[in-house]
Amino acid sequence: MNLKQLSHMLELSQTTVSRALNGYPEVNEETRRRVMDAAKRHGYRPNPSARRLATGKSGMIGYVLPTGAAVSIDPHFVEFLSGLGDYARGHDLDLVLSPADADDEETTYRRIAANRQVDAVYVSSPRPKDRRVALLAALALPFIVHGRSEGLDADYPFIDIDNEGAFHEATRLLVQLGHRRIGLINGDIRETFAIHRERGVRRALAGSGLALEDRAVVSSAMTEENGYRAARRLLESDGRPTAILCSSLIMALGVQRAVSDVGLSVPGDLSLVAHDDVFTWLQPENFSVPLSTTRSSIRAAGARVAERLAARISGLEDGARGEVWPVDLVVRGSIAGASV
Amino acid sequence: MNLKQLSHMLELSQTTVSRALNGYPEVNEETRRRVMDAAKRHGYRPNPSARRLATGKSGMIGYVLPTGAAVSIDPHFVEFLSGLGDYARGHDLDLVLSPADADDEETTYRRIAANRQVDAVYVSSPRPKDRRVALLAALALPFIVHGRSEGLDADYPFIDIDNEGAFHEATRLLVQLGHRRIGLINGDIRETFAIHRERGVRRALAGSGLALEDRAVVSSAMTEENGYRAARRLLESDGRPTAILCSSLIMALGVQRAVSDVGLSVPGDLSLVAHDDVFTWLQPENFSVPLSTTRSSIRAAGARVAERLAARISGLEDGARGEVWPVDLVVRGSIAGASV
Repeated sequence: MNLKQLSHMLELSQTTVSRALNGYPEVNEETRRRVMDAAKRHGYRPNPSARRLATGKSGMIGYVLPTGAAVSIDPHFVEFLSGLGDYARGHDLDLVLSPADADDEETTYRRIAANRQVDAVYVSSPRPKDRRVALLAALALPFIVHGRSEGLDADYPFIDIDNEGAFHEATRLLVQLGHRRIGLINGDIRETFAIHRERGVRRALAGSGLALEDRAVVSSAMTEENGYRAARRLLESDGRPTAILCSSLIMALGVQRAVSDVGLSVPGDLSLVAHDDVFTWLQPENFSVPLSTTRSSIRAAGARVAERLAARISGLEDGARGEVWPVDLVVRGSIAGASV
Repeated sequence: MNLKQLSHMLELSQTTVSRALNGYPEVNEETRRRVMDAAKRHGYRPNPSARRLATGKSGMIGYVLPTGAAVSIDPHFVEFLSGLGDYARGHDLDLVLSPADADDEETTYRRIAANRQVDAVYVSSPRPKDRRVALLAALALPFIVHGRSEGLDADYPFIDIDNEGAFHEATRLLVQLGHRRIGLINGDIRETFAIHRERGVRRALAGSGLALEDRAVVSSAMTEENGYRAARRLLESDGRPTAILCSSLIMALGVQRAVSDVGLSVPGDLSLVAHDDVFTWLQPENFSVPLSTTRSSIRAAGARVAERLAARISGLEDGARGEVWPVDLVVRGSIAGASV
């Protein structure tokens, strides 16, 4: 007996039946009792235990949240979550965050799989040979990876943006503008997105017979302060770069501060391009010099991850399809021809 | 039969039993079968359905997440979540985010209460006469409010910071430095924290026979762009303020940009104080002029909310205790004596 059948039998709307079962005051007491009695008699129980018994589904998707004193959740996570929430709301899915020791996520994955507390999970910030992928396959827990791993034995389902292509195109443009010494201020190089971005820069430079010098690359957590420190280091070195690519808008704030502190300016002394995940609260056109960006909405990615998880749960999707989104290269005032 | 008793009976460690039940490969097949058989025979089932049957608890705390095309989750949320995760991880609590239509959270609260899918919830961004407080009391769902409401008929449990006191103290200091025209760039004035901050400014000014002019107050969502627009408006008005208080570090980025765009400087032309929730990725000492702040860690608040929810779930806390944390006033280079 489902809601529709129950409503039909009672000659009430599904809304009224649902409201009665959920204790809304708009439904009068007599109707409420009639609905409750019928639901009981026919075994209709709209709670998760009943749903699980009937369908084997919990209506929840999961995410293992790395925590610890040294761990900070990135503001990118909120924007992703906004998108995921947009989709989930329309499809009656809740999201269970299971906080885990950042050094031992496996225990938590095993627990949630054993408990069957969620129908599927998503995995974020993948690294090369990411062990979570094989673990989830072994646990038979449906999943989608947001991002990509490399060097795994088997394919797996993922959604990623073309990080390599984006940084390749941005670098190619800078080279065409005459830049020869290009620096890269990257995120954590243990993560695939950062590896791909560096690869894109190297490939574009190699295409013009140039090389990315090791000392022109800095990788770290994407904070304003780390952006500042990296930029100071690059700008105060011999043969300082005339152009910098930067992996986040937040780091770019620090780069901008460093440029100003050492008495240089954008784009006269330095061309600057940063990756923009499209935050509502910090926009590249609002930098003191509007910032050129590689742009891709992480909120849209969140919605798509939720959509594909829902499809996997309902059996509409299976297999190991990977999906790579193109990235926009948006030119604003922060880049110019190399003056050197 | 609990895990300890089961382990004792089997003469195995609790770790081995737990691993066997959760399908760890380290446990050999014979042991695993012995454990599973004994667990079954003695009715030990370590999954959430069993836990719920045995204790009536789901081991989950809930949060109704407002969503919608026009809704952005604030980066403050991530920092709060980090703290909540820190505590929850150590206490085997998961967090269920239930995305709701921002214009109708009530339906979602009713659903999660009816489903008994979480043991308790927290409420954030409360407004005066916030309807969620009475709703949760009526639904008998344990809760804590992060922040405060006003004008309610009954007391309720909450954790808040002393927003009024913080902005009172900051304003008082600015007045003592000779400032007479003070502006306020605030968050959404429908929310209590913003009301309290404005009240603090007004009270401090009144204490010196001054008034906060209506045109010196701007309230909006706390984005960089809104900070910029508000500052432009204040700085280009007749009798522009010589000091501004600002409700967030992100808005303060925009204020700093506006000050520079109109050819003024901090603190020579304008003293600036902002509220700092203590983000790891954007720090007030790293502003081009280090920023004076009212400081309170929103991550610590997240941990405390989780701790009190756990106490309420286990019956260690009840009643309507409110808890108000003092706020630090941290002076850095962005304030100076009024030159006018």
